[in-house]
Amino acid sequence: MDAESLRLAERFLPSTYLKQARDADISRRSRIHQLLEKRKCPDEGWDDQTIEGLLVDLSKMDSNNFPANCGVGERESRIFSGLVAQRHYRLGHGIGRSGDISEVQPKAAGSSLLNKLTNAMVLDLIRRIGIRGTQACLVMPMATGMTVMMTLLSLRESRPQAKYVLWPRIDQKSCLKAIVTAGYQVVVIENVLEGDELRTDVPALKEKVSTLSPENVAAILTTTSCFAPRGVDRLEEVAKICKEHDIPHIVNNAYGLQSTKCLHHIQQAGRVGRVDAFIQSTDKNFMVPVGGAVVAGFDAQFIEHIGKMYPGRASVSPVLDLFITLLSMGVQGYTSLMTQRSEHMDYLRTRLEEVANGFDLQLLLTKNNPISMGLTIPKGVGTELGSQLFLRGVSGVRVVTPNQIKTIAGVTLKGWGAHHPNYPHGYLTAAAALGMTKADVDTFMGRLEKCLKKISSKLRERGAEDDNGVESQ
Amino acid sequence: MDAESLRLAERFLPSTYLKQARDADISRRSRIHQLLEKRKCPDEGWDDQTIEGLLVDLSKMDSNNFPANCGVGERESRIFSGLVAQRHYRLGHGIGRSGDISEVQPKAAGSSLLNKLTNAMVLDLIRRIGIRGTQACLVMPMATGMTVMMTLLSLRESRPQAKYVLWPRIDQKSCLKAIVTAGYQVVVIENVLEGDELRTDVPALKEKVSTLSPENVAAILTTTSCFAPRGVDRLEEVAKICKEHDIPHIVNNAYGLQSTKCLHHIQQAGRVGRVDAFIQSTDKNFMVPVGGAVVAGFDAQFIEHIGKMYPGRASVSPVLDLFITLLSMGVQGYTSLMTQRSEHMDYLRTRLEEVANGFDLQLLLTKNNPISMGLTIPKGVGTELGSQLFLRGVSGVRVVTPNQIKTIAGVTLKGWGAHHPNYPHGYLTAAAALGMTKADVDTFMGRLEKCLKKISSKLRERGAEDDNGVESQ
Amino acid sequence: MDAESLRLAERFLPSTYLKQARDADISRRSRIHQLLEKRKCPDEGWDDQTIEGLLVDLSKMDSNNFPANCGVGERESRIFSGLVAQRHYRLGHGIGRSGDISEVQPKAAGSSLLNKLTNAMVLDLIRRIGIRGTQACLVMPMATGMTVMMTLLSLRESRPQAKYVLWPRIDQKSCLKAIVTAGYQVVVIENVLEGDELRTDVPALKEKVSTLSPENVAAILTTTSCFAPRGVDRLEEVAKICKEHDIPHIVNNAYGLQSTKCLHHIQQAGRVGRVDAFIQSTDKNFMVPVGGAVVAGFDAQFIEHIGKMYPGRASVSPVLDLFITLLSMGVQGYTSLMTQRSEHMDYLRTRLEEVANGFDLQLLLTKNNPISMGLTIPKGVGTELGSQLFLRGVSGVRVVTPNQIKTIAGVTLKGWGAHHPNYPHGYLTAAAALGMTKADVDTFMGRLEKCLKKISSKLRERGAEDDNGVESQ
Amino acid sequence: MDAESLRLAERFLPSTYLKQARDADISRRSRIHQLLEKRKCPDEGWDDQTIEGLLVDLSKMDSNNFPANCGVGERESRIFSGLVAQRHYRLGHGIGRSGDISEVQPKAAGSSLLNKLTNAMVLDLIRRIGIRGTQACLVMPMATGMTVMMTLLSLRESRPQAKYVLWPRIDQKSCLKAIVTAGYQVVVIENVLEGDELRTDVPALKEKVSTLSPENVAAILTTTSCFAPRGVDRLEEVAKICKEHDIPHIVNNAYGLQSTKCLHHIQQAGRVGRVDAFIQSTDKNFMVPVGGAVVAGFDAQFIEHIGKMYPGRASVSPVLDLFITLLSMGVQGYTSLMTQRSEHMDYLRTRLEEVANGFDLQLLLTKNNPISMGLTIPKGVGTELGSQLFLRGVSGVRVVTPNQIKTIAGVTLKGWGAHHPNYPHGYLTAAAALGMTKADVDTFMGRLEKCLKKISSKLRERGAEDDNGVESQ
Repeated sequence: MDAESLRLAERFLPSTYLKQARDADISRRSRIHQLLEKRKCPDEGWDDQTIEGLLVDLSKMDSNNFPANCGVGERESRIFSGLVAQRHYRLGHGIGRSGDISEVQPKAAGSSLLNKLTNAMVLDLIRRIGIRGTQACLVMPMATGMTVMMTLLSLRESRPQAKYVLWPRIDQKSCLKAIVTAGYQVVVIENVLEGDELRTDVPALKEKVSTLSPENVAAILTTTSCFAPRGVDRLEEVAKICKEHDIPHIVNNAYGLQSTKCLHHIQQAGRVGRVDAFIQSTDKNFMVPVGGAVVAGFDAQFIEHIGKMYPGRASVSPVLDLFITLLSMGVQGYTSLMTQRSEHMDYLRTRLEEVANGFDLQLLLTKNNPISMGLTIPKGVGTELGSQLFLRGVSGVRVVTPNQIKTIAGVTLKGWGAHHPNYPHGYLTAAAALGMTKADVDTFMGRLEKCLKKISSKLRERGAEDDNGVESQ
Repeated sequence: MDAESLRLAERFLPSTYLKQARDADISRRSRIHQLLEKRKCPDEGWDDQTIEGLLVDLSKMDSNNFPANCGVGERESRIFSGLVAQRHYRLGHGIGRSGDISEVQPKAAGSSLLNKLTNAMVLDLIRRIGIRGTQACLVMPMATGMTVMMTLLSLRESRPQAKYVLWPRIDQKSCLKAIVTAGYQVVVIENVLEGDELRTDVPALKEKVSTLSPENVAAILTTTSCFAPRGVDRLEEVAKICKEHDIPHIVNNAYGLQSTKCLHHIQQAGRVGRVDAFIQSTDKNFMVPVGGAVVAGFDAQFIEHIGKMYPGRASVSPVLDLFITLLSMGVQGYTSLMTQRSEHMDYLRTRLEEVANGFDLQLLLTKNNPISMGLTIPKGVGTELGSQLFLRGVSGVRVVTPNQIKTIAGVTLKGWGAHHPNYPHGYLTAAAALGMTKADVDTFMGRLEKCLKKISSKLRERGAEDDNGVESQ
Repeated sequence: MDAESLRLAERFLPSTYLKQARDADISRRSRIHQLLEKRKCPDEGWDDQTIEGLLVDLSKMDSNNFPANCGVGERESRIFSGLVAQRHYRLGHGIGRSGDISEVQPKAAGSSLLNKLTNAMVLDLIRRIGIRGTQACLVMPMATGMTVMMTLLSLRESRPQAKYVLWPRIDQKSCLKAIVTAGYQVVVIENVLEGDELRTDVPALKEKVSTLSPENVAAILTTTSCFAPRGVDRLEEVAKICKEHDIPHIVNNAYGLQSTKCLHHIQQAGRVGRVDAFIQSTDKNFMVPVGGAVVAGFDAQFIEHIGKMYPGRASVSPVLDLFITLLSMGVQGYTSLMTQRSEHMDYLRTRLEEVANGFDLQLLLTKNNPISMGLTIPKGVGTELGSQLFLRGVSGVRVVTPNQIKTIAGVTLKGWGAHHPNYPHGYLTAAAALGMTKADVDTFMGRLEKCLKKISSKLRERGAEDDNGVESQ
Repeated sequence: MDAESLRLAERFLPSTYLKQARDADISRRSRIHQLLEKRKCPDEGWDDQTIEGLLVDLSKMDSNNFPANCGVGERESRIFSGLVAQRHYRLGHGIGRSGDISEVQPKAAGSSLLNKLTNAMVLDLIRRIGIRGTQACLVMPMATGMTVMMTLLSLRESRPQAKYVLWPRIDQKSCLKAIVTAGYQVVVIENVLEGDELRTDVPALKEKVSTLSPENVAAILTTTSCFAPRGVDRLEEVAKICKEHDIPHIVNNAYGLQSTKCLHHIQQAGRVGRVDAFIQSTDKNFMVPVGGAVVAGFDAQFIEHIGKMYPGRASVSPVLDLFITLLSMGVQGYTSLMTQRSEHMDYLRTRLEEVANGFDLQLLLTKNNPISMGLTIPKGVGTELGSQLFLRGVSGVRVVTPNQIKTIAGVTLKGWGAHHPNYPHGYLTAAAALGMTKADVDTFMGRLEKCLKKISSKLRERGAEDDNGVESQ
């Protein structure tokens, strides 16, 4: 209620009652003023009512919601269905303009402001949880794969002749597709096996750079978060190579914001070498529906350049989800989720070790992977374990068996699934991701043990036979 | 309520009352069965309750909503904020898989089904409103500009050496950016002035094809819907050239689905020549928030190929909006909106003619533009008219004054805004778009007249002076 | 957005864009200021966004929504379920205090204000649609029957010895129960048959007053809106009797606000005689869910007295529904609904006459019933017609056959359903109530004709036999 | 999704993915089947999605939501505002019929079923948390005061001559008003002071019964939950008197369901003596908005009789809130809230004792009050303490100073606020009610200490003076 309304309300109510309402309102408003003034993610999360109030206020700033608006253009944000209007808080104009995804729209001051604030909050959060040197970020209304692609496309203008993207192998299709669809040739750098773990082959990478000649290399695309037994890439060393040879360095940090280790490596890489952009998904890091990604970097101009390459407007929806979520979480909420995640990672490890001991299996030692773990599976077991877990309501486990071969967009990868042509074990992976609960771990372990028991007894009955890998996602 | 529940409910209620409920339920269900069986947009729109019921049912099919689900992957669609969960009907997994935007997700049967059904309904609707030969379509969760870009990127694999996109000029930034960001060189084909109208210069286009050699041409990008005084491109003739020379032909049909004329030209072009894909925005054609586009074509394989080029998952949000809206509209709702639009176009024309007569101005004759119209503005008037209309709550009018020059992504265009280097008039445009009401026309005309009167009297006072063009969007 | 926020937003957006938002906001705010200042129902309805914005603002004024609230009482409006909180806009404290249903609550300034405003809007509307002399009204969070009962209970204090309520018969259970539950004895005044119509037997009423002696009569309870063939009671004449003999006069105006005739009679009765209170349902007159009633009158003190008799707090829910609906309708919306209703009444009459002619039936002439009509049914027809219509999805038709006897709360009524011991016809009723559409009439007539045809042919086959009355509600 | 839909969905999705969806659906359905079959509150709470799904299903069973419905009655549940329709899940017909609040409506099978299920769940819960002998209950869509009044009105028919209600004093207006508005004379039975505590004066009660003669006593109205220093009434002894003298016994158990002690006394009273009905508020016991009450008893017929006295229909809204909340809580949720409440009661007591020691005050010993506690206040302190706490955002504290006199509905009570004409202390009360958190206690204690410090220093400065009591609600 504005001051005038509260004054008029005194005709109905004693002013002492209204004083309290005014005080409460002032405390809510001051949060909003701070957000606008400091451009920071609030420390403490807001209640839903304050968030919704702000959304309604922002929505009223868009021309399609002006009581006296009269639209004679081709896009006037008339929304046919009330269900649709409501679920978007009547925001209809999207974000960006023809020229630039982060430009403000005259017709949509509210949506534009929401977009700016979201970007500001994400930037603040990224800095505060660990990548202090971040200079700019953009919330892109498309997922990680597309954002990697857009980032690669943004490099072409300044390196028109470069046609190779060097890619320390990770067995995940999207990033491979992102390179190919962007029109580049993929140069696979196979990982090296160190103990159970797979790490970046830095000498091979260096070798490749000099073979191809740096000016022909459009970018090196490294990865932080990934399925075990692959570890985080050796970001600092790659960043140094990139700096030395003036090669763009893009980091696929898909779900790495939730891990202090990933954050640390990016911050360090940016300090000691070159990192042009690091890209992360909003769904995996911020517990929102799939649909957005954040591209961030240490050079504000390059990030802005990506925004300027984006042709046309875009959905505000992923930005809106993030806006709501960040206000609701606050920095404290996020860091406490990170802490819990780390604890559940430890708990999951302990529980998997017990199972490993009980069934004579092996928990793969992958200390450079802070999120995902691998457990070897009994010889001769494959698909059936994955399917059984899936049908028991366990989602997200991957069962990888050796010797798969896959060709994606013209690139053939031996030992598909394992990030390595000859990984010595079949195994399954499990991850402790943001939002996982201790109860989730317990449920998983219960179901896993049940499946392993069943399979073990079957195996004892019949002779084991080889089987194909299946992902239960 | 399922049959068993209704049976159990007889312990509480007389069975005659329940019979009616059962009958009503059967009629609702039969709509859903038909949707699944026929894969068609319903003729008559559904009520919101039936739509929401179906959405809840679909949402329950996604693993994150299974009561007993246990997620140990990195992406388990845990949604932090209740506000966010609710506005997405708890759909969190997005659409597509790493490999393909239209692939189904094991974790998300409901979202996948929703996506398939939406695509099926859009295809059916496009066929029934006029482009009968359409073989396939994809709802892309990004707007027109990005979808044009993705479509162009999809051409590279089969035409790796082609680097030019021929582009009959339209003064709109997104499509130009789409070409450039996709890594192609833009070859501008200037329009020819026929009376007041600007049309495709087919001879110049032919000439360019032979100069550059067809195999170097990645595609010709034509446009249907556009601001007056540009008309629809000569699609049929371009399509014939493309067929003859084996050049891909992409049609930017941004808001053309709402116009029978645009639909007719695309259908004819596909019949007599080559059209690889036509692309249209979901917001402008279906009255949903900005964020989606439909790419459709006469060759199902090419459309599928575009889907397969998409790296990673994507937001279900634009698809969901369309799903709700199509079920709510039905084909009848859509065609009746089209009819109204056409009537309001006539009404707007009549009213603008009156104003033209009253103020000694000229309504530009542009019979090949079925949506937008141009009215010349008094000599010496420019920015001020646009600003005044904008501040009076008129959105969407563009005021174009001659002799603007603009450089976008390295391409310099003379006479920017007018689609022509030397258009002889300054003018303003107004469009009769889907959802516009007669009251909108009346309000607009009232405000326009007021502004023109004010300006006329000012002009009489002082001598007129030249001014720059400003768009009121 | 408050002024400070808009000022701070200039760091993100050009101030010209914000100017528009500010202007739009001012126009919205001025509506709210007017509402608070004038205490009147707005002429024109508001859009949902403005309504929701105001609701959020009111909700924030309740202590349970204060960010820093700390509750140590027994009722602190903690709401367990998010679904429940949301559907009530987080209003939890209800209305009223122990002492008075219309008293303001210190803990709930927002709910209290909402309540006051709703009462003010209803009062204004009642005056403007016809009962100009109304001095006060109370929206009661309970339906008509209970509100009649509460009003009767409020009379006891000043007339402790009076034990009779005189009641011109209307065959509807609630009002009868209201009298009995309030602890009074019902004195039925049978109606007189005038042509097809049933009217108040004023002489019999006078006679009864003098027989019982006025001081023993607690009240006379008349009725306006009712099922045909009963007409509106002769309010003016009863009001005069009440004035003369100093007897309270309560009018059951259940769904009469929607009819200018009912309004006119109440206004006149209040002018020429005595009307203590007239009571109407919110669902039937304002198209909200069942649950509220309005008690209004020409003497503000008596209405306030009723409020003060109410023990304890009450649900805000019916008040909230009315608040939203009145803001959404505006006075213009309401009067236009009234006009449509009246037109559909005429249309229904015309169509029923056609059917009457076609099937050799008779449309009962009941010019004093402005809402409900009666059509005789073929001899020997009863239950089956009602059931058939019900099963065909026609609700609200009553089929009345003569000679039913019913005892309710100790009162035996002959000819139950017909408001008369010996009504000469069997008949069915249909009403043109607020919100009915022309399409409803057409659908009804189609189904009615179908049923009548079926029944006629059956009747021709077999000999007709007597049947019992059944209401299809 | 029904079986047929899932079968048809196989045209779009692999049947293995659908199998999972089917399994999940079966588990959800089985909960609904159990609810319908067992008529019990679920042990474990349901997720919101299942609850909403059921609500949508129930709503579809009401005729106003039938796709082919055609209404020609006066009440067809047409809902004008979409906001209103939505917040009620499109349930519009309310509950009950003219004759009986618990009767089913032919037009509203869904609402009727919802009502029946809610009543069944409440009955089950009441039994399981302690009053095992409960035979029936009714959720009334009005708050405690009105429900007490309705219950008293229901007694009149069988005891027409009885005009007194004996009332062991409790200083709360609603119950007093309930008696008076129902038309009875209040006979106040003053409490006796036992230590710090006020208890029922059983001898005085007996005395009064014989003085007035039992047949003139309509009922004895006792109270369980109340502000300290009053304790729970001596229910068992009163119940025995009632049994012996054949006097109805109504228990005002306003917020006593949350306390095992209150439950125990009611159960015992019902076993050893006579309890006709015990009445409790839904908001205070179930954390829903104000608006409902539950009347329950050991004799199903009497409870049904109350329902049959209710004239007309009523709002479904309070029932709906309870339905949602009980499904969401489950019995386990409720009992765990009870346990927490009890722990916070202990914690509050400990903290108040500390303050008592620190400020030389006294925590009143009231072991028969399981919810509310009293702390004496410094001599000469009154209003100011209440106001200061209120303005600091503490709600629900009552500050009581001796020697207040109040006349309510003709009944004069000395020592108002203290339940006793001469309570020896001024004091404040604080309650540990359902849903209170440990943080609430801490915040309260912090603010209380601050206020006490401020007041103490003021008192030291000036000489203390007497002051009036003020409630901070």
